[in-house]
Amino acid sequence: MQQAQGMGFPLPGDFVKMDDEHDTTRLRIFSGTANLALAKEIACYMGVELGKINIKRFADGEIYVQLKESVRGCDVFLVQPTCPPANENLMELLIMIDACRRASARTITAVIPYFGYARADRKTHGRESIAAKLVANLITEAGANRVLACDLHSGQSMGYFDIPVDHVYGQPVILDYLASKVISSQDLVVVSPDVGGVARARAFAKKLSDAPLAIVDKRRQGHNVAEVMNLIGDVKGKVAVMVDDMIDTAGTITNGAALLHQEGAREVYACSTHAVFSPPAIERLSGGLFQEVIITNTIPVKEENYFPQLTVLSVANLLGETIWRIHDDSSVSSIFQ
Amino acid sequence: MQQAQGMGFPLPGDFVKMDDEHDTTRLRIFSGTANLALAKEIACYMGVELGKINIKRFADGEIYVQLKESVRGCDVFLVQPTCPPANENLMELLIMIDACRRASARTITAVIPYFGYARADRKTHGRESIAAKLVANLITEAGANRVLACDLHSGQSMGYFDIPVDHVYGQPVILDYLASKVISSQDLVVVSPDVGGVARARAFAKKLSDAPLAIVDKRRQGHNVAEVMNLIGDVKGKVAVMVDDMIDTAGTITNGAALLHQEGAREVYACSTHAVFSPPAIERLSGGLFQEVIITNTIPVKEENYFPQLTVLSVANLLGETIWRIHDDSSVSSIFQ
Amino acid sequence: MQQAQGMGFPLPGDFVKMDDEHDTTRLRIFSGTANLALAKEIACYMGVELGKINIKRFADGEIYVQLKESVRGCDVFLVQPTCPPANENLMELLIMIDACRRASARTITAVIPYFGYARADRKTHGRESIAAKLVANLITEAGANRVLACDLHSGQSMGYFDIPVDHVYGQPVILDYLASKVISSQDLVVVSPDVGGVARARAFAKKLSDAPLAIVDKRRQGHNVAEVMNLIGDVKGKVAVMVDDMIDTAGTITNGAALLHQEGAREVYACSTHAVFSPPAIERLSGGLFQEVIITNTIPVKEENYFPQLTVLSVANLLGETIWRIHDDSSVSSIFQ
Amino acid sequence: MQQAQGMGFPLPGDFVKMDDEHDTTRLRIFSGTANLALAKEIACYMGVELGKINIKRFADGEIYVQLKESVRGCDVFLVQPTCPPANENLMELLIMIDACRRASARTITAVIPYFGYARADRKTHGRESIAAKLVANLITEAGANRVLACDLHSGQSMGYFDIPVDHVYGQPVILDYLASKVISSQDLVVVSPDVGGVARARAFAKKLSDAPLAIVDKRRQGHNVAEVMNLIGDVKGKVAVMVDDMIDTAGTITNGAALLHQEGAREVYACSTHAVFSPPAIERLSGGLFQEVIITNTIPVKEENYFPQLTVLSVANLLGETIWRIHDDSSVSSIFQ
Amino acid sequence: MQQAQGMGFPLPGDFVKMDDEHDTTRLRIFSGTANLALAKEIACYMGVELGKINIKRFADGEIYVQLKESVRGCDVFLVQPTCPPANENLMELLIMIDACRRASARTITAVIPYFGYARADRKTHGRESIAAKLVANLITEAGANRVLACDLHSGQSMGYFDIPVDHVYGQPVILDYLASKVISSQDLVVVSPDVGGVARARAFAKKLSDAPLAIVDKRRQGHNVAEVMNLIGDVKGKVAVMVDDMIDTAGTITNGAALLHQEGAREVYACSTHAVFSPPAIERLSGGLFQEVIITNTIPVKEENYFPQLTVLSVANLLGETIWRIHDDSSVSSIFQ
Amino acid sequence: MQQAQGMGFPLPGDFVKMDDEHDTTRLRIFSGTANLALAKEIACYMGVELGKINIKRFADGEIYVQLKESVRGCDVFLVQPTCPPANENLMELLIMIDACRRASARTITAVIPYFGYARADRKTHGRESIAAKLVANLITEAGANRVLACDLHSGQSMGYFDIPVDHVYGQPVILDYLASKVISSQDLVVVSPDVGGVARARAFAKKLSDAPLAIVDKRRQGHNVAEVMNLIGDVKGKVAVMVDDMIDTAGTITNGAALLHQEGAREVYACSTHAVFSPPAIERLSGGLFQEVIITNTIPVKEENYFPQLTVLSVANLLGETIWRIHDDSSVSSIFQ
Repeated sequence: MQQAQGMGFPLPGDFVKMDDEHDTTRLRIFSGTANLALAKEIACYMGVELGKINIKRFADGEIYVQLKESVRGCDVFLVQPTCPPANENLMELLIMIDACRRASARTITAVIPYFGYARADRKTHGRESIAAKLVANLITEAGANRVLACDLHSGQSMGYFDIPVDHVYGQPVILDYLASKVISSQDLVVVSPDVGGVARARAFAKKLSDAPLAIVDKRRQGHNVAEVMNLIGDVKGKVAVMVDDMIDTAGTITNGAALLHQEGAREVYACSTHAVFSPPAIERLSGGLFQEVIITNTIPVKEENYFPQLTVLSVANLLGETIWRIHDDSSVSSIFQ
Repeated sequence: MQQAQGMGFPLPGDFVKMDDEHDTTRLRIFSGTANLALAKEIACYMGVELGKINIKRFADGEIYVQLKESVRGCDVFLVQPTCPPANENLMELLIMIDACRRASARTITAVIPYFGYARADRKTHGRESIAAKLVANLITEAGANRVLACDLHSGQSMGYFDIPVDHVYGQPVILDYLASKVISSQDLVVVSPDVGGVARARAFAKKLSDAPLAIVDKRRQGHNVAEVMNLIGDVKGKVAVMVDDMIDTAGTITNGAALLHQEGAREVYACSTHAVFSPPAIERLSGGLFQEVIITNTIPVKEENYFPQLTVLSVANLLGETIWRIHDDSSVSSIFQ
Repeated sequence: MQQAQGMGFPLPGDFVKMDDEHDTTRLRIFSGTANLALAKEIACYMGVELGKINIKRFADGEIYVQLKESVRGCDVFLVQPTCPPANENLMELLIMIDACRRASARTITAVIPYFGYARADRKTHGRESIAAKLVANLITEAGANRVLACDLHSGQSMGYFDIPVDHVYGQPVILDYLASKVISSQDLVVVSPDVGGVARARAFAKKLSDAPLAIVDKRRQGHNVAEVMNLIGDVKGKVAVMVDDMIDTAGTITNGAALLHQEGAREVYACSTHAVFSPPAIERLSGGLFQEVIITNTIPVKEENYFPQLTVLSVANLLGETIWRIHDDSSVSSIFQ
Repeated sequence: MQQAQGMGFPLPGDFVKMDDEHDTTRLRIFSGTANLALAKEIACYMGVELGKINIKRFADGEIYVQLKESVRGCDVFLVQPTCPPANENLMELLIMIDACRRASARTITAVIPYFGYARADRKTHGRESIAAKLVANLITEAGANRVLACDLHSGQSMGYFDIPVDHVYGQPVILDYLASKVISSQDLVVVSPDVGGVARARAFAKKLSDAPLAIVDKRRQGHNVAEVMNLIGDVKGKVAVMVDDMIDTAGTITNGAALLHQEGAREVYACSTHAVFSPPAIERLSGGLFQEVIITNTIPVKEENYFPQLTVLSVANLLGETIWRIHDDSSVSSIFQ
Repeated sequence: MQQAQGMGFPLPGDFVKMDDEHDTTRLRIFSGTANLALAKEIACYMGVELGKINIKRFADGEIYVQLKESVRGCDVFLVQPTCPPANENLMELLIMIDACRRASARTITAVIPYFGYARADRKTHGRESIAAKLVANLITEAGANRVLACDLHSGQSMGYFDIPVDHVYGQPVILDYLASKVISSQDLVVVSPDVGGVARARAFAKKLSDAPLAIVDKRRQGHNVAEVMNLIGDVKGKVAVMVDDMIDTAGTITNGAALLHQEGAREVYACSTHAVFSPPAIERLSGGLFQEVIITNTIPVKEENYFPQLTVLSVANLLGETIWRIHDDSSVSSIFQ
Repeated sequence: MQQAQGMGFPLPGDFVKMDDEHDTTRLRIFSGTANLALAKEIACYMGVELGKINIKRFADGEIYVQLKESVRGCDVFLVQPTCPPANENLMELLIMIDACRRASARTITAVIPYFGYARADRKTHGRESIAAKLVANLITEAGANRVLACDLHSGQSMGYFDIPVDHVYGQPVILDYLASKVISSQDLVVVSPDVGGVARARAFAKKLSDAPLAIVDKRRQGHNVAEVMNLIGDVKGKVAVMVDDMIDTAGTITNGAALLHQEGAREVYACSTHAVFSPPAIERLSGGLFQEVIITNTIPVKEENYFPQLTVLSVANLLGETIWRIHDDSSVSSIFQ
């Protein structure tokens, strides 16, 4: 694996913070157990200590949370992606919020680098749940005042909350890294691995010197007929950059990559903010189809899941900077302008 | 204009309702002023009378609503698309809901064939409103117990409500009409007029004998540079069926149609459930690029807006049948299976 | 028309603000499109700039709002009377509130100089809406934290909100202007144009050296019988000052004025905070019955509606001062003591 | 005292109920301790038994409520005016509602013949409570689904609830009784005892053959000056009928009556739905100024408070009939047409 | 292990249900995955089929729920104890509720035989969560209309819900089984394993012919000192029946049992409704201290956890009967009289 | 009576406040009428003045509240135990909260030294209210942002609120006083007067040098049989300290004391935070069974209720210190460490 050392979010010069610049008296950042490494990196960027918190699981699996320092009148940030085990991590977040509310925190911001259940954002058949909305309701009901999320699966999910949502994008982190690769823009084609991700891929393409777009269109032509992959657009001789918001079992992206090679792509890169990496993702991704698999650390990658083509970029600076701005009441959207 | 007489939703045989089959004692259907013709068609399909209601506007433009018959203990359905003038129609709907609630209706279903503000379903820049969510909140706050909507712009919007949403699709009505056109499936290509509508177009294509897909990708390459249209996919010699959920000013679809012709398409059809038809939509659509423009009556088309290539299909039977099923507590989703 | 130059609310000496007195770092005032002139006057009084905001209407009439400057952590005041077109202006206000909430404003105060739908504050027949309450609920649901309103039609409407309402009175502005007229108090009689406004007229009379009171009592004596106007009280030889909270079509006040002349009144003045002026108000008011028609600028008067007897007083200073006090957390009620 | 035997609400012929007409399986009526006699009369009219309920006060004054029969799935009506002791009666009502809610009642209707705190419906000075709205919120929060109220002090209070309010008027009961008095309509004048009640008095006057109106206008002309009573309108030689919604200490109405006599009224009647009768009301009312004091039994009159000129009419039939209509889901407003 | 065959809740004769007695048209019972065996037993008692439901977990652990039959207008009962894995089972319940709500169920009753997090019902130190209340809020927020729970850890938890809670007791099932043991009441002593459970133990003792009570009082006398067990009361030569609502790791009850033997108890029984059985519960309970361990099936006992002294009683009949009564709107509390 | 002069809460040295230490600009403390003496003591400890407030009762018993000074933007603390007359005091508190909310207080803390209805915290029979939860809901609904309570009857009640509850304990005040009595710890036994209070008594015992515990177990052995008192544990020759959270009619504690004497106790002390003292409490407590009855001033003791064995300790310093910490956003829980 290739650890993108010193990378992270390349903040413009005027973001270089000075220690004395911020008032941290009323700022508290706590980490749940889902991604302690990221929380530490965020705190490190910000030059503050993570708050002391006792999170334990009883023998029967119930979660116990006690804040070990006062949060009375403080702006509390709780860093907890709801990545797998999603239910465990979500309940932990809810209980942390509840503890903060009952302990008289002034505001509670749920920092959710990866928002689990994001894909369950609509009913595609009758009598389904819309779990993404349910989860948004639960977080609000528990007492959060604000959410800081990263690359939500659908932008519409922001509307699932009536509390303010600060939505940041991992895309610049990945684009910046790709820029360091020095690939000629004539050679590039951006590929959406399915029809649902075309808008995301196109936005990505625009930032990559307005690279052309191709789309993998997978269809099942009947009940017992194997599914057929069509490529809409042209990749012959090109460096194909597949873009998605998350890689779960990696089935779609791997099938797509195979098709791209078949259609003459020179090299295939996979880019994704969220690396869920459910089995058999690692087998698929490390199978030789990809020149490089570029992800971020919104979800922690287990050490045994590292493979040579994997590059993990950090969103810690991006999130840390955003927390500063929220705490200082300065503009968040201007980070992305 | 070509009025698709006797069309509407071709309900399977077992939907043929008999007059005695339903108990209408506690059913009331009222129409707002937005689309009285549709409401009447729905009532006609159902064999019931529209409820008497007094809706007037005072000299200063404020809306006054009085139900002229008792709704106490009744299941009330209020038919009101929030089409232009969107704010007027929305406020009218909210006041109707309020009147029903205060008059002790048992349940209030807002039947919204076209849901205005549906496109404002996400923040694409900082400090925007998410008006689609706001409107959903307003409808809920006013006292609606359920929403019956037709072809919401994004499926995620269903989650903007925590009250049940029955979501019906105008697609089958349009598909059925297209089937009557007898176009060889080899000749067909389904085209999404922009990257945001690819998933919708693909679902449509699957139902049209799995027709191939093409996408119009419009990009602006710089601040003072004109935007460039690319076609992803192939349409040469084909009958192109452009699919969108709504046609507003018809700019996107008309530009796309021009490109399709330029790329060799034989004929171009435009299909859309919702005909918002803001100026200069009529000029654009009737300019000769389209073989036929197929829409439904979720929004009333003003007589002066009719043009020869326009075909208006009716969703009245579809909505009427759905109202029966809601009232009778039988499955709505099975209509679409 | 007689523009009451330099008038406005004659603030006591200790209200003379100094530029350095107030902290405006976290204060933002935005104007909707309903009464930009008033909003500018308010900002001018306060010595601040109106916030930059983009409010536009799409071709289909839907409203789009984007704040063009950060409101994060700010106390935001949104100036928007919900005067005609009431539904347009109300929806614009709601969307502005939604945008502010999602942009993390600390508090949002809806400054509503004229509160539309205020008269729909009770059910006089079965199955009506109570639109005034509905509107209050919508404003609260959208996310406002406080309302600043001026001369609500009924004091009870304040209770329609559970968020704090700062209620200011245009009366002192009008009384102060009348005082400059130097009419002998023996000559004065205050007249309520209908039985519903007696309490308001009496409060006004008390402030005018305890002037006597008369009431116009209009009755319809049967279905096909014309309505009869009775005057309760005596106006012979007096200067009659008719008082109402709003003038809409001006029917009631004009009929009353005719009766007053018939009963021997020497001169008739009309005073009203809110000038809705629906047709044919201007014809009626400028028809010679009134010596002077005195209103305020809570609702903008169109230039074509000006007529010689019209005097428009400004509530800008009053509202500006109230906003300062809200922002500075000092007493509002003491303005009126 | 003159007990208006057999009176009550003279229901039209088609209201004569038959025992078999209504389904009482799921109907439960419970009485609080505030006005058991009225509740019994209501039950008697309806031909049902009052539900068994245990309401007791512990030694420390806390209230204990236990329903002694199942209300699961029932429409429960709780008869409890919040008359003095208002706080005790209100808390009792709230606890009864809570018990019904937790016992799975299908719907809970708070039948509140007299709504205490109704006068506290606006802020007349800064930093007051609007207790009428607070009480409405408390009743809703406790779990009531509907309110049945009688002659609310201000119609606007209906809007304090978002649950349906069925508002009935004691006026017809009083008018019907007055009709039996055979007073020539030429002799009649209806008098409002203060400026706040003019609209109510005028509505009453219209029903009394369009009798003329007079108003008592009480003013205090300075800090140490006694208040002065003016009569607006003419009562000489007439039978004056004073109308108010409630008589509390009877100061206003008694002072008014003295003025009426002084201005030459022949006889003075006092009419009021609600007899709060706080001391020294009885002394004042029985002091010889009134020919007759006509009230209803929304509030129980203690036996020691009876005096010869007092006539108590019953609203039991009116409330009983309304409860039937609510339970049967038939129109309530048609009672008053 | 001794399976108490044919046992369960010995319902009085008048509970013997007949197939035709109940209307099941609008009744649906679904089981989550937590305790399918119990749900099946309940359905069997009721003579109905469990509803078809698809509950699956994606590769990343997220839960997907789809109801496979219509619940529109139905009274839905969802059987799901939130036993370990508590967070998984709770989220599953919440998603099931959400699916039912969005599918227009008429009412949703969460049947929660074991309510996880029940012990986290107070803050014993600063800055803790009160997870039991949080969970109650989540269930309500998700859309449940009612809860049916069994032996809540503290009665106060019922108040954590404002929706109705039907609370049933496993105690009669256990008492009935103990009665079959024919132990002389002189020989019996009921023992509370800690000071927190004294009230529960005493209630149990009263039903056991008013058996005497003893209490194990465990104290830690300093930081490095081992804890000391005191017995308050006398057990010498007696049959000690230890009573608790749940057995988790069985530490407390086992230490208590050791003390009881030491103090001369003849035999020790353990009785508990809920068998959480976290390790090393089985080792402790099967270690010879207990004559018999009597529990119910609110939580499924894994087959490998059976041991010879274990007796599992069934609450299926009790829950089934309660569901009937809820569905039929007949009294639930009378089951326990 | 023995007034414990100079006592109160013995705050550690670092609590000694200095006048300049706190910012009181935005702090307002108002007292209701329930315990003005305590509120004054609290203000005295804090070195601030009580806020001016007008609370009056009209002739009909309705409560009127007007704050006589601005609270705009202030942190308001309302001191009002809901002791008898509980309903009067509770309504007064709710109306005070409402007035503060409508007057734009920044935060409202209800300081409730004694929380009435606390014992109604569960349903012990069917169809009861859970009044403690209802009251918590009412306080929240009225607009309180936080509660400061003292020795709640059950810790679970804290969860009845979702707003933060700062819960302080009168125990240290009592323990500190007892320490001054110099009773040998070998001589001590702590007694719970009933099985419901064992946990509280044990916590008390641990603080008293881990004194042993005894329990009075009262049972009624049949319908017409007198109840029997058993003592579990040993008190012979000991100084028995009976502990309860409140003394109401004193029946339980007096019967228990008699039993203790009968079982050979040397002396009996009664300790309780809350002295409800409903008749015949005074007769019972002063009858010679108690060496001393030690209470606090959460509820005011009427002068005529003083008796020689009564000692009243003050919680004013404790509450005052807590209010400082809430206002200063410093830790409250650390007071008790």
